[in-house]
Amino acid sequence: MENTPRTEISTLGEFGLIHHLTKNFELQHAFSVKGIGDDAAVIDNTGKLTVISTDLLLEHVHFDLLYTPLKHLGYKSVVVNLSDIYAMNAEPRQITVSIAVSNRFSVEALEELYEGIYKACEYYKVDLVGGDTTSSVKGMVISITAIGEATDDALVYRDGACPGDLICVSGNLGAAYMGLQLLEREKRIHIENPEIQPDLSDHAYIVGRHLKPEARRDIIAAFSTAGLQPTAMIDLSDGLSNDLRHICEQSGTGAIVYEKQLPIHEDTFSMATTFNIHPTTAALNGGEDYELLFTIAPDKVDLLQDIPHVTVIGTIQDRDSGILLETNQGKQIDMPAQGWNHMRKS
Amino acid sequence: MENTPRTEISTLGEFGLIHHLTKNFELQHAFSVKGIGDDAAVIDNTGKLTVISTDLLLEHVHFDLLYTPLKHLGYKSVVVNLSDIYAMNAEPRQITVSIAVSNRFSVEALEELYEGIYKACEYYKVDLVGGDTTSSVKGMVISITAIGEATDDALVYRDGACPGDLICVSGNLGAAYMGLQLLEREKRIHIENPEIQPDLSDHAYIVGRHLKPEARRDIIAAFSTAGLQPTAMIDLSDGLSNDLRHICEQSGTGAIVYEKQLPIHEDTFSMATTFNIHPTTAALNGGEDYELLFTIAPDKVDLLQDIPHVTVIGTIQDRDSGILLETNQGKQIDMPAQGWNHMRKS
Repeated sequence: MENTPRTEISTLGEFGLIHHLTKNFELQHAFSVKGIGDDAAVIDNTGKLTVISTDLLLEHVHFDLLYTPLKHLGYKSVVVNLSDIYAMNAEPRQITVSIAVSNRFSVEALEELYEGIYKACEYYKVDLVGGDTTSSVKGMVISITAIGEATDDALVYRDGACPGDLICVSGNLGAAYMGLQLLEREKRIHIENPEIQPDLSDHAYIVGRHLKPEARRDIIAAFSTAGLQPTAMIDLSDGLSNDLRHICEQSGTGAIVYEKQLPIHEDTFSMATTFNIHPTTAALNGGEDYELLFTIAPDKVDLLQDIPHVTVIGTIQDRDSGILLETNQGKQIDMPAQGWNHMRKS
Repeated sequence: MENTPRTEISTLGEFGLIHHLTKNFELQHAFSVKGIGDDAAVIDNTGKLTVISTDLLLEHVHFDLLYTPLKHLGYKSVVVNLSDIYAMNAEPRQITVSIAVSNRFSVEALEELYEGIYKACEYYKVDLVGGDTTSSVKGMVISITAIGEATDDALVYRDGACPGDLICVSGNLGAAYMGLQLLEREKRIHIENPEIQPDLSDHAYIVGRHLKPEARRDIIAAFSTAGLQPTAMIDLSDGLSNDLRHICEQSGTGAIVYEKQLPIHEDTFSMATTFNIHPTTAALNGGEDYELLFTIAPDKVDLLQDIPHVTVIGTIQDRDSGILLETNQGKQIDMPAQGWNHMRKS
């Protein structure tokens, strides 16, 4: 960054800054009635239900700017919110973005962040309709609210799973977690030996899954085309083990997951082995995959052939049977639980 | 706090904490279809437009816990967002609340914060429908999104003011700012002489205006009853001078404000004098009043008699005439502008 121009945020002021960063964001949807620039945004969802999700991301807790390019951070911050809207079987339409930054950040740095936000808005066809820009004493805070819409009969909650339903997952599991482990290791090496530059090109898949995840819009679209309505759904942000627990608790059920069915990418498997982490542990407890975990009635199984990248990994059971993992050795054990790390680390 | 019980947040974990803090929040509205506990909240605004506003509040930037009771902070954090919704002439219906806290805060401290949030939800009849709880390395961050509804013809934007319109303001100006100055002074005295306990009881009005502001729901209700539709409106968060500028810029107009018309409470006046601050400066540039600044067509002036606590302070003019203050001495000067302090301070 040393040779790039640096404009102090204070030269623009709050309103100048918002205008500067968002001037290229044009509203794409007629139903985004009013965007940035008033007390509130106005949305016309008449005839449909409004779906709202919000996330708060803090530097040093949720992201590390040592290895996270700001453009990717902007992109990812949007994607993780959209993922929540898709997990309702709804369509995201708008976002609001609030950021707090210290004067350590230049206008150019924020431009990069907003370039990523812009890319995500463009790719997922959502309008940036509001937000707030303020200062922080130290570090960066990003708060994003995503707004979507759905018809009442399309919405899928976490509480609709029934015993006998098949447990399905999109894509593969644990890749983002192994990407994060690799980045953290390279960071430690670089701090100890600043002359060593990490070469991550052999590990582009897992690093990309951490730095630039995508939300599974394609799966939601395929549900609609196939006429498949999941009975329950959640996006995998806290790891399969935690997120399946949410579905089971809210549906009042148990579940069994088959270890041999867990979809794990070969690069995830290989990096887990390098780190002496059991690949199943990465798949069960690694967070931030942003894949969809959903359940379907057993008589709908034929419709799955029209949904790409989906694996059946288990079955919903009665609550009394608990939440189980059947290992590759055929033993049924309690699903390994992992607490919420963010709070424990602090 | 030394004799009160202290429960570490880590004993509850993220999901336990959210549940613990929000278990008394019941949805009040049938149109809040789904609240906390899924990927997103679901709102039925079918037939009306959805209005969204969001704010990000950081400790040491937007609030100081040395003199801000957590319960008041929770209450105020909600109110400042609702104020934005009312400023659209809309009705707030739901909020989402995300907080980030370090382990310096106990569960009991967060309970106090949520007690204030609860009081505001109860008083303003809004449902808490979602949010996020996470850790911070240091300090507290609060992010609130307010969701409201309005019919298309009721909404009032910032861009509808026309030359000749009357500029009106609810309540009085500068009180919250003088309350803040007093609290900051007492804080400095207390830090230098810890044995001196501030007695703020003589200044309850201005201190209350800073610590526990209210949003002007009553004015919005009176508009509806009186059949008065403002041409433009904004809530006063950044000070009259800044906020009037927003209306003028977006409406493409100028304005003239009469110093002698500015409504200033006697306690504000007296404290400003004590601080050697011109009371007009407090009224023009003091932020966080959360009063409504609005414009009405001149032929609607008779309807103002049905709107309580409103003062006509000036007139919208052509853009070319600029934004002027006519002083008590009859001189017309450029409205004193004040930049955005939050970013400059950092």
